[in-house]
Amino acid sequence: MGMIYTKPLARLIEEFQKLPGIGPKSAQRLAFHVLKRSGVEIQSFSEALLEAKEKIGTCSVCFNLSCENPCEICTSSARDKTLLCVVSDPRDLYALERTGEYRGLYHVLHGLISPLEGIGPQDLKLSELLHRLSSETEIKEIILALPPSVEGDTTSLYLARVIKPLGIQLSRIAFGLPVGGDIEYADALTLTRAISGRSAV
Amino acid sequence: MGMIYTKPLARLIEEFQKLPGIGPKSAQRLAFHVLKRSGVEIQSFSEALLEAKEKIGTCSVCFNLSCENPCEICTSSARDKTLLCVVSDPRDLYALERTGEYRGLYHVLHGLISPLEGIGPQDLKLSELLHRLSSETEIKEIILALPPSVEGDTTSLYLARVIKPLGIQLSRIAFGLPVGGDIEYADALTLTRAISGRSAV
Repeated sequence: MGMIYTKPLARLIEEFQKLPGIGPKSAQRLAFHVLKRSGVEIQSFSEALLEAKEKIGTCSVCFNLSCENPCEICTSSARDKTLLCVVSDPRDLYALERTGEYRGLYHVLHGLISPLEGIGPQDLKLSELLHRLSSETEIKEIILALPPSVEGDTTSLYLARVIKPLGIQLSRIAFGLPVGGDIEYADALTLTRAISGRSAV
Repeated sequence: MGMIYTKPLARLIEEFQKLPGIGPKSAQRLAFHVLKRSGVEIQSFSEALLEAKEKIGTCSVCFNLSCENPCEICTSSARDKTLLCVVSDPRDLYALERTGEYRGLYHVLHGLISPLEGIGPQDLKLSELLHRLSSETEIKEIILALPPSVEGDTTSLYLARVIKPLGIQLSRIAFGLPVGGDIEYADALTLTRAISGRSAV
């Protein structure tokens, strides 16, 4: 069949296809959409890509994504420095920030312990967490916001083992029926968690 | 809540959200994916965007997207210059090219007549088509590959009216049950088209 698309179009479609969840049809749709936009808009998109890669690094204290080091959360005077929330991924941090409820500090592990995938404690920001706990003596309570999965459970157990001897209060976020969720349609694992995590009325 | 994302990340997510079918969650996922890629890969993506916008124009003969003018199809010696296929959008042209079956020329209308949306013949590359038919006297047959919709039908009728007096053979692609389609599950309009477009066995 030879060429179908003119070369720069083929290249653009290919670049879009490298993105997760974007197949050939979506990639073509995105490329055509981009072609219809103004040069200024495309310039802006192009610059945003370069700028993000160039400027965003990780905070050397909490390992959140940031352009500053330490990051805005670690240096904020409005934050409760006695409280530390441990998350696996920066996306989880953003999800918690969106609630507006949590005002403590964070620590991003950048992964979870997974023997199956060969990810051990040394592959995560775990020694950095222990170092923080020994130097930031204000920290009184740690909340584990790790997912309710085998890896999340394993990592939580590991953290419990290393943190408890330090005499710091440790808790894990609650798992159960989501707000608005139907008991009828909830999966068995969620219901099991909901029952075992029941609280007195 | 104030800032959640560091600024360049917020900007990148915003840019992804401008793409069609990309909501806030997908945009965040794409931005995080991009951040994990190497600087070289991001440079390449960024350049592909700029290059596509800069180099791709429309062929002044058939109005397909192209970096050349006239385009590679119009100037190809391997093409049957007696046959012209009229499509609404360059994407339809690519879909036909992918079959590898059609070896004639194309004409891209860049739209369809739609009285409801206020799109008349003057808004499409129709006068350009008529101009081609009077100058490219090799053209003996025209195939209308316009969609089976009110707009596609209206445009086909309009084209039939203006092309038939020129004594050029005119046809429209067949509509009916897609290959592999179940009659049981086909919609009424498709079945109606399939019946009216029946052919002798």
